[in-house]
Amino acid sequence: MTFSYDGSKYNGYQKQPKVKTIQGELEKALKVINSEEKVEVSASGRTDAKVHALKQKAHFDLTKKMPPDGLRKALNSLLPPDIYIKDMEIVSDDFHARYNVRAKEYVYRINMGEYDPIEKDYIYQYNKRLDTVEMERALKYIEGTHDFKSFSKTDDEKDDFVRTIVQTSLIRDIKNVNMVTISFLGTGFLRYMVRNLVGTLIEIGEGKRKSEDVIDIIEAKDRRKAGKTANPEGLYLKDVFY
Amino acid sequence: MTFSYDGSKYNGYQKQPKVKTIQGELEKALKVINSEEKVEVSASGRTDAKVHALKQKAHFDLTKKMPPDGLRKALNSLLPPDIYIKDMEIVSDDFHARYNVRAKEYVYRINMGEYDPIEKDYIYQYNKRLDTVEMERALKYIEGTHDFKSFSKTDDEKDDFVRTIVQTSLIRDIKNVNMVTISFLGTGFLRYMVRNLVGTLIEIGEGKRKSEDVIDIIEAKDRRKAGKTANPEGLYLKDVFY
Repeated sequence: MTFSYDGSKYNGYQKQPKVKTIQGELEKALKVINSEEKVEVSASGRTDAKVHALKQKAHFDLTKKMPPDGLRKALNSLLPPDIYIKDMEIVSDDFHARYNVRAKEYVYRINMGEYDPIEKDYIYQYNKRLDTVEMERALKYIEGTHDFKSFSKTDDEKDDFVRTIVQTSLIRDIKNVNMVTISFLGTGFLRYMVRNLVGTLIEIGEGKRKSEDVIDIIEAKDRRKAGKTANPEGLYLKDVFY
Repeated sequence: MTFSYDGSKYNGYQKQPKVKTIQGELEKALKVINSEEKVEVSASGRTDAKVHALKQKAHFDLTKKMPPDGLRKALNSLLPPDIYIKDMEIVSDDFHARYNVRAKEYVYRINMGEYDPIEKDYIYQYNKRLDTVEMERALKYIEGTHDFKSFSKTDDEKDDFVRTIVQTSLIRDIKNVNMVTISFLGTGFLRYMVRNLVGTLIEIGEGKRKSEDVIDIIEAKDRRKAGKTANPEGLYLKDVFY
């Protein structure tokens, strides 16, 4: 299934006891449909607290037989209004929503203009001008296959931090010069990677670092060399490709 | 002062006992600044529950002497993040934020495309195509000075329902064909008037009524002749002119 959600009221995608999560809501609704038999939902990956998704993907097995679009409608009627199932289809038994991912696209929205209370949960309110041309230059150093350990979660104990960023772009809003969207298309992402990249890009946009500093930061393989983790509310999982 | 707010978590602008209102939050914060002495805030007019404002205006008297921008910052630091003071200036003693209004602009946003959970509190999710050309024609019959009793709140016991709509427009989003914004500039508005006009326009867009039916609806001076009251979440008080 393909689904979108407003992450602002959730403790992230992944199920946790006692707190509201996207996976928790999905499994609760599917259990009702599946005659109270537990359903486990496997998504393309987790999203952190307050992060949104435009086209997240997941698979699950259902005991109950139902036509996909009927299931989609039933599920939407049970889900809270900030989660919406856009599409549902039957996949082969060997399909896995996480293991079969070929690429993912994330976008990050920044408001360089005045604080906007209406968008506070949907755009990072930076509220100052940034040198977006220098940020755009830095993006070119991020593209390609690199060891992204410097941009990973501090205590991440992975062995392999090598990931490939296929394409990046910095898009200026045609109607609002203060609104900028940074897009990352990659075959895989580490936890906090996009937000750590954006945090570093912001420091470049502030003039605290140069675009070519990205080369050294990547080289260092040291989280302390990169910038701060950017706020979650500007981040959207835009699409997942198989 | 000029201020914007996300109305989705509020019971409207106007102060009421025991519920969260914009005026209530403003007066609570101003009282702290004014050394616990009560401050009464007079806005250009109320907005209903869940309705937003981009540039609402209000005046008040403060015992405490403070430079306007310092007051603006102090107030923003005390207000919840869904209310934001954009501008503050000293006005003459005879200025009144309600009585001196020359015109107001409201906009109403409709999503004719797929349900969007991220925008559920910020755009009316109609989620079906509308005949926007016919709606645009109907807008032309709304412009001018008319008795708008048919578009007023059912039990409104005013004597005078005559208002002037100076200009209207229907704006299609350049990036999203399914997003439409209807704008109303008028010297005054009755309670629920914009939402009742939009509800009627939607029925015209659905083909249930013709654009020229607006002439008869106005003529009837009967609330039952007009369409339903459109949902509050699509409505924004865009600006107030003095």
